[in-house]
Amino acid sequence: MSQRGLFISFEGIDGSGKSTQARLLAERLEAEGREVVLTREPGGSPGAEEIRALVLQGDPDRWSAETEILLFTAARRDHLERTIRPALAAGKVVICDRFADSTRMYQGLSRGDLRGVVDALHDLMIGLEPDVTVLIDMDPAKGLDRALSRQGIEERFEDFGEDLQREMRAGFLALSQEYPDRFVVIDGGRDIDAVAADVAQALSAKTGGIT
Amino acid sequence: MSQRGLFISFEGIDGSGKSTQARLLAERLEAEGREVVLTREPGGSPGAEEIRALVLQGDPDRWSAETEILLFTAARRDHLERTIRPALAAGKVVICDRFADSTRMYQGLSRGDLRGVVDALHDLMIGLEPDVTVLIDMDPAKGLDRALSRQGIEERFEDFGEDLQREMRAGFLALSQEYPDRFVVIDGGRDIDAVAADVAQALSAKTGGIT
Repeated sequence: MSQRGLFISFEGIDGSGKSTQARLLAERLEAEGREVVLTREPGGSPGAEEIRALVLQGDPDRWSAETEILLFTAARRDHLERTIRPALAAGKVVICDRFADSTRMYQGLSRGDLRGVVDALHDLMIGLEPDVTVLIDMDPAKGLDRALSRQGIEERFEDFGEDLQREMRAGFLALSQEYPDRFVVIDGGRDIDAVAADVAQALSAKTGGIT
Repeated sequence: MSQRGLFISFEGIDGSGKSTQARLLAERLEAEGREVVLTREPGGSPGAEEIRALVLQGDPDRWSAETEILLFTAARRDHLERTIRPALAAGKVVICDRFADSTRMYQGLSRGDLRGVVDALHDLMIGLEPDVTVLIDMDPAKGLDRALSRQGIEERFEDFGEDLQREMRAGFLALSQEYPDRFVVIDGGRDIDAVAADVAQALSAKTGGIT
């Protein structure tokens, strides 16, 4: 019997370790014999990567929040058509580092009135939610230290103080309560292998055994 | 007394002469002492021009119709925020070569089921219609000859035969009937000065004298 596709997203503040955990889960599932597509947003398809570059390069103020949401939604639509849906249709596991919840959180946080616009665009143009969303929850002080220790990332964090990180953490936790059916919240403030074991166990419980 | 801003769009099939007529109207209004911003879509602001390049360059099939509509809407939002709204707020006349009606027509024509998506996106993210839309109507055979005689344009027309041009002409005429309050339809199949005189007269009638 062919296996059903499964769509898993990872969310969390920068420095939470979500990208590492996404990769470790991909390796674990591949070792168990599943076909896995590990991808990320914004980006994840050639066209979406071009849109990513357009949004993230240059002066951060050159796009309004509304235009940025439209560009992110265009990138997500391309990613969905070219990468995610074909993989799911072929019975693969898609593991995505950030998906629509990041747009809900970051754009909704920067401009509270835009959450409705984000949701309306999602319903109109995307219409797909992950089967499971793994939120790697992390004390912002730890996450910020970890992120700052990475090479080249300092500039992006100039305006990302600990207070803002706390707001973002609270924003992701609020989303996890808004969508309890698909969210699992994992404590990311421990060693990597312990977190990875919890991710695998939570995923198995959520899906009733995924392999 | 400061003058009220006025937003005029020009629409029509390629080769109809609409860009020439937009320019001639701009020159006429400037000669009458109005401040005019002559702009175009897709594009019309630095960010929107970058999105235009992303959409129009490369393999024509690299974006789906849905992603293309999102990118055009992102470009339009930027154009609106950075060029159109500031000019209207300053009491200027904005003359735009193509606006939302081109998206309604071209995307709606290529995929009939997408007209609803185009309209929903417009209502959500743009929400502005021109005060007057000048449709330069043209016999497709004439328009195609004129377009093909321009240097470098041949390739784009490989798949744009006369039948498709007829459908597009009919599509624009149908839009003019859908929005009769703001559309004026001008016969573009005559010499340039006669068309320009008609445009000026129709505009004056539509606005009750614009200068």
